[in-house]
Order: sequence, then structure tokens, then C-alpha cells
Amino acid sequence: METYSNSSSLGKVLYERRKRLEQLVDFPVILWSGRPSPRNFPANPFPFRASSHFLYFAGLPLSNMAIRLDSGKLELYLDEASPSSALWHGEIPKREAIAQIIGADQAFPLSELPSRASGAATVAVQDTTTYWQQAQLLRRPVTPANAPEGIDRDLAKAIASLRICHDHGALSELRKAAAVTVAAHQAGIRATKSAKLEAEIRGAMEAVIIAHNMTDAYGGIVTVHGEVLHNEEYHHPLEAGDLLLADVGAETSMGWAADVTRTWPVTGKFSTTQRDLYEVVLAAHDACIEKVRPGVEYREIHLLAATIIAQGLVDLGILRGQASDLVEMDAHALFFPHGIGHLLGLDVHDMEDFGDLAGYEEGRTRSDRFGLGFLRLNRPLQTGMLVTIEPGFYQVPAILQDPELRSKYQNVVNWQRLAQFGDVRGIRIEDDVLVTPESQEVLTAALPTEIEAIEQLVSEGIN
Amino acid sequence: METYSNSSSLGKVLYERRKRLEQLVDFPVILWSGRPSPRNFPANPFPFRASSHFLYFAGLPLSNMAIRLDSGKLELYLDEASPSSALWHGEIPKREAIAQIIGADQAFPLSELPSRASGAATVAVQDTTTYWQQAQLLRRPVTPANAPEGIDRDLAKAIASLRICHDHGALSELRKAAAVTVAAHQAGIRATKSAKLEAEIRGAMEAVIIAHNMTDAYGGIVTVHGEVLHNEEYHHPLEAGDLLLADVGAETSMGWAADVTRTWPVTGKFSTTQRDLYEVVLAAHDACIEKVRPGVEYREIHLLAATIIAQGLVDLGILRGQASDLVEMDAHALFFPHGIGHLLGLDVHDMEDFGDLAGYEEGRTRSDRFGLGFLRLNRPLQTGMLVTIEPGFYQVPAILQDPELRSKYQNVVNWQRLAQFGDVRGIRIEDDVLVTPESQEVLTAALPTEIEAIEQLVSEGIN
Repeated sequence: METYSNSSSLGKVLYERRKRLEQLVDFPVILWSGRPSPRNFPANPFPFRASSHFLYFAGLPLSNMAIRLDSGKLELYLDEASPSSALWHGEIPKREAIAQIIGADQAFPLSELPSRASGAATVAVQDTTTYWQQAQLLRRPVTPANAPEGIDRDLAKAIASLRICHDHGALSELRKAAAVTVAAHQAGIRATKSAKLEAEIRGAMEAVIIAHNMTDAYGGIVTVHGEVLHNEEYHHPLEAGDLLLADVGAETSMGWAADVTRTWPVTGKFSTTQRDLYEVVLAAHDACIEKVRPGVEYREIHLLAATIIAQGLVDLGILRGQASDLVEMDAHALFFPHGIGHLLGLDVHDMEDFGDLAGYEEGRTRSDRFGLGFLRLNRPLQTGMLVTIEPGFYQVPAILQDPELRSKYQNVVNWQRLAQFGDVRGIRIEDDVLVTPESQEVLTAALPTEIEAIEQLVSEGIN
Repeated sequence: METYSNSSSLGKVLYERRKRLEQLVDFPVILWSGRPSPRNFPANPFPFRASSHFLYFAGLPLSNMAIRLDSGKLELYLDEASPSSALWHGEIPKREAIAQIIGADQAFPLSELPSRASGAATVAVQDTTTYWQQAQLLRRPVTPANAPEGIDRDLAKAIASLRICHDHGALSELRKAAAVTVAAHQAGIRATKSAKLEAEIRGAMEAVIIAHNMTDAYGGIVTVHGEVLHNEEYHHPLEAGDLLLADVGAETSMGWAADVTRTWPVTGKFSTTQRDLYEVVLAAHDACIEKVRPGVEYREIHLLAATIIAQGLVDLGILRGQASDLVEMDAHALFFPHGIGHLLGLDVHDMEDFGDLAGYEEGRTRSDRFGLGFLRLNRPLQTGMLVTIEPGFYQVPAILQDPELRSKYQNVVNWQRLAQFGDVRGIRIEDDVLVTPESQEVLTAALPTEIEAIEQLVSEGIN
């Protein structure tokens, strides 16, 4: 397997992660990789995705494995592949070989796990079959990962404290995912000139990701209806005057993700109204990235985006009033109804299986404010965190046609003026930003954001 | 949704299917669509794939729905999307609109289902969360789909008898899947000249499938190691002298599949040894397709392939003896260790969730013969069946290095001669063949199989 290359450097990275975990917990830990989920029949599963927590400490995306960490020792549990599986799946490395790659001290068949499971903490996996096994083997209830209890909660906190700041092994993978994602977006932008459907642009983007032997980190968005925030349909035709919003990210074979959005005009030329609103979003994007550095509260970055967007909309005559007042009353959220971004790592919303345990500083909870409740990260930034910065402007019918919201904000929105921007349904500009000791580094900076550069790429088409 | 277009003709197709089911069962039937399976965290699921049985009668790939069929009436059960979901997923059609599209007589929220579930038969779905609900709502154990009991077994047989021969609605979808799959293979063959890795060829193939707003019907195989029958790794470099085997099929948005394999030389020129063995496999492919017609036993087609391959290997000096004797002793299976094909429809191995209930005529069971045990279909062919024809030749180390097999077949294999064919690790040629009233129609015939045409396509590259 490709993932076995560089096994000695992988082994060292994994060893250091386990060593750091050991310092945080005083109980044994068992982590399961999970099993493939069947698609329409058992022999036709979805591509296997190992549990992110397992991957973090065990490195290899192999199914139906468990590791046990206890007093500085690593034990590996898996069953050898059956002889007939070699016919169908080729030679699969032996237990001992896998143990060596990941630096395990001992290796056992799975049947040995029950006798060594007592007293261990774990993280509930996503696939229900393995989840049942977890409770069965640990002989106690295991609550879902977003509501861990007892030592499982202690473990979740310990893991979150490690995974939240990336080591050099993680960064090396995250940079690979970012580079391929940049190439995918470039291909998508270039494919627009000759495409007639959203799906064709998506095909060009996925071709790049797949050609690099990566997968989608999440269900990509490639749509002329950017106002549908999680649009996962790709059948709309591209029509002159449309903006295309593409939110697509690659994931390396080891599971590390990128998450990038660009918005471009299908004709290669932004209209004046599109240009005006794009510049507002871009100003928020640039200012927020500039603000990323250790110690800064991510919530402040969100509020900065909200303020810049509100001011931009005031300048365009769409909103009325002082930007700070508008943000205070959540008027920005009429057009920017999501958070400025989130943690990024092995999961595209990193550690979201823990609920807000990783994203929110202890003691903080989600706001019930319309303009803050969707914020997924509310912590001071630290060196080594990777976050997305993804401001947007959308005209979402479910918001703008809502009678309650229309009435609440009737005095601050100039609806006639807004109607002149009807050719802007959704704009988002998203990059992946690493917090560095002094400031920040944009891992996806090679992909342009400026209007001229984007227009140029669309016009060039496929060389 | 795209799938709502042509809703009236869809409604008619679905109505006729339900009408035919009604004639076969005398109990109510409830079919669930299922739910998305989480990938690494709940908000990042795999693309939703509805249960094939649900799709067959309800048509729309919508999650968390159920239909109830009773005395000729269709009831639809689903909950309306929450208002906030419109923000994230756009406007989702209302219950009544969906009811109209699929021709339901009545529509209810899911909370109404428990009171109407009594006495109904069902098919166990693949996702465990919905599977729990099935047993809970029906207030009885529900065994997995491959071991149905009581009325569930009667229902499985009834559904299998319908789905096994395709109606015009199904064929229209299956032809679309076949056409896009042909285009994907053409793109893959043409991409070879400029590709350095398996993954790059796969990228070119997937680009076509995705650009047509389709998905993979199964985890595709694109490899220079065709001897690994279910190889799902794509990282090997393409080296001069390699044959590339690509087994890739598209699935329409309504869930209907294609399944096609081609094998081509990465340089664009078959070597003499590759050519010799390719011609053996192609002769089996052509003769088997020619034999497809109503009334013919599919097992006989498998044995025809085995005989032609055995004879071809005798002619090449690899095997010794009479072809019929060699097949009798399963010597063909040293090099052709799988079945000649399977049913194709909503599932790539159609209705394999039922185990062999659909593939095997009542009263027949799997052979324990090395050369017959992997046969997935053992029935007389009927008009409207769609089957794959996919003979192959492989040098599988797990077989050819097996001491027991080497000893058993020591007198019929010329190992020295075989060694001269070392540049052939795996060849398969697979098409999708519809049984017609008089003979057969190859839905994927537009994709060439002949050496010259294949070499030509590779050499042309991407225009």
C-alpha cells in the first residue's frame, strides 16, 4: 500500500503523538478503525474511511483494527486476512508487518481484545456495527462521540488538545491536500468555458483529485445556486450571467483534508453588481486572514467579517446604518448566515464528531444570536491550528422571504436597492489558513482570489 | 431535483411495477429508503444511496422515506423538511408534491407509520439505523435481506421475480448508464498515453461519469495488477509492457448501473504473448455473448467460456489435454477463477442483498467445485434479463503458487511455457448483455474489444 512508504518517518510521528497522549491520561485507551459501510448490498461498500482518531494515532487506513495504548505501550489487534482474500484483494500485509510500520510493541488477533478491554476509555466510532462492539467489549455503555461520559470524556478532551494544533507529520499531509485542491479548482475554472452543466465543472475538478489518488474530503458543492449553502446537486445548466460557486476539497490517502471555495462568472466576466459584492466578500476574506495569529479570538475574526460585510453593504446602499450597529442586531446574517470558518485537519470540520468540545473553549457554548449561532470555532487561536476563512454573501429565499425577518429588519434593508443585485445568488471565498508563531500562512494561497486573475483563468479555458 | 423531470412517465412505470407486485402478494408491504451513512462525522455522510427495492417501486432517491403498499393502494410516509433545512439544502419538495410524482394515494408523516405497520412484509435495508427501526415498527424480528423469513421471504421472491426482467423504464435508465460507461472507458483508454499512474487514468474515467451527473456503480478497478480481482488501489506507475485493466461502471441518478471491463496495453501495443492470451479471452467473450438468448442456461455459458479458455490455453501450450476434460477437473479455474458474470440492474450484482435468491433458480445452490463455486447466476435466461459477460485470464500468485493446486494440476500445466507469458497478469473483457426475445443485445457494444481498435484508441490519445 502506498501509505506504507516512508513508514519510518510515519512511525516516528505516530510514536510522538502517542507519547503526548500518554502524558494526558492515566487509563488505557482503545481506538477502533471501524468497518466499511454497505452501499446497496454488503459486497458493494462505500470506500472505507477509518475513524479519524484511530488514524491520528495508528496512521494506516485499515478496516476492522483496534489499537490499545497503555502505560506507554502500543498493542495492535487485527485478524490476518483469510487465504481466499488474497485472490480478491491481493496480498495484505501480515499483522506483524503492520505492527512494525506503526511501531506497535505487541500484536494480537481481535479475539484477544475482550480480555484486555477492561477499564479502557474509547471514542465511539460512526459505523454502528463497530459501535455495538465497542460497548460489548468494554462491557459498559458507550455514549456517542458528541456526548462522551466519564473517562471517555477525559479522553476526548485529551485527543482534542493534541489534534487541535498540527504537528509536522500532519502539516505535510495537509499541504498535499491543499496543493491538489488548488489544482482541482484551477481545472474547474478553466473547464467552465466549454461546460454546459455544473456537473461538467465538477467532473474536471474531481478528475484532478482522483488522478492524485486522493478522495473528496466532503460532498463537494459546484453550483450556480450558491445561495443553497449545502447544495449537493449538479444538474443545473450554466447560463450567461450566472456565478458558479465551487466548494471542493481533497483528502489524502491518510485522511487529511483541504477545504476551498471560489466563485467565478461562467462567462468569464463579472457584471458590475457581481463585482461590487465580490469585492465586499474579498475585502472580508483578506482582512480576516490578515488578522489570523496566535492569541486572537476566532470569534473576533468572525465579527470582523460581519462588520466588513455590513459596511460594504451600507456602501452599496443595500443596508442602512452604522456597520457596528448592524452587526450588533445581526443584520449581516441576512446575507452572511454562517460562521467565518472552522478547524480543519483529519475532518473537514475537524473533530466535529465531538460536538463543540474541540471547537469551543471550555465553558463557552453556542450563541443563540442569528449572526453568531453557526460559528463552529470559538477559541483563541494557537500556533499550529489550521482554520478556514470563508466569508460569503448570499440571497437565500428562506431568509429574505421570511416574514418575521423582513419585518424585524425592514428599516435597515433597502429592498429596492437589493433587487438590483439579483444576479448574485451566492458568493463565497474560502482558504485554509495555518496559525504560525508570528502570524499566518495561507496553505491555498496559490489559487487566486482577485477578480482579474479569476477572469483571466476562465477566459483561458483548457490549454 | 433532476429526477422529478418526466414525472408522469416515471409515475406510470412505478404504478405498473406496484400493480404487478400486488398480484404476487396478499399482505401489506412496507419498504424503507434508508438514511445516509456517516463518513468520519455525522454531518459529513457518504452520498445517499436509497435501498434498491425502494427505488424500484418509489423511484425517487430520497432518504428517510417509507412506502406502504396494500390492496392496490400506495401510501407515502415522510416528514416535511424543517424550515432551517431550506437554508442549507434549498427548497425540498413538500410531501404532497412527492406523493403526486410517485403516484401515492395518500401521504403521511412518519409518525403515522407505526399504527399502520402491523402485518406488513419488508426487506431489511443496509443501514443499521433504519434496520433497527424496521424491527421496532413491525414489532417483530427482521432478519437480514440474505436470510428472509416468513412473509419477508415471500416478498423477496416476489420482488426478485419482478426485478429480474427489466421493463422499459429500467431499460431506458440502463442504456443511459451503459452509454456513459462506454464514454468513460474511451476517455480512460485515450488518457493512457499521457498518464504515469493508474490514478490518472481513473481520473479521466471518473471525470466523464461525474460530468454526466452520475456516480460509480461500484468501487472501480483501474490497475496494472489485474490479477488482484478486486483491486481498489490506484497508485501503481504505468510501465512499458504493462496491461491496464479497467472495470468501471456508471450509475444513473435513479440508481441503475452499468459494469464494463476493458484491458489495454499502456504503450498502445500488445506484446505477442499479451495478444495471444487476449485473443483467447476475446474468443470466449464473443462466443458467450452469441449464446445469450431466452431459455439458455447461464451455467452453460459459463462452461462455454471455461471450455474456450481451456482450449485456447492448450493451443498455446500452457495447458495439456482435452478442453472438456480440463474443464471437468476445473483446470480452467487456475486462470479464470470467477464466474462468467451476473445479473445487472439497480445493483451491479443485482439483488445480491438477497444472497442467491435472485441469482439461483429455486432448488439450486452454489457448487463446491473450484471452477463453478463463484458463479453468481444459475438460471435459464429470460427475455428482459440483463447479464454481464466477463471472461478473464489471470496469473494469481495465491492460486498458482498454492502447493496443493500445483500438485493437483502438475500434469496438466506446462509451467515452463506459462512462464513465457509473464507479461500477462490479468485480462478481462466485460460487456452488458440484454436477453431479447430472439437473441441478445449488447448495451455496451459501442466500446471496441478488438485488438486493433483498442491499440488505435490508445495511440490516438486525447484529441
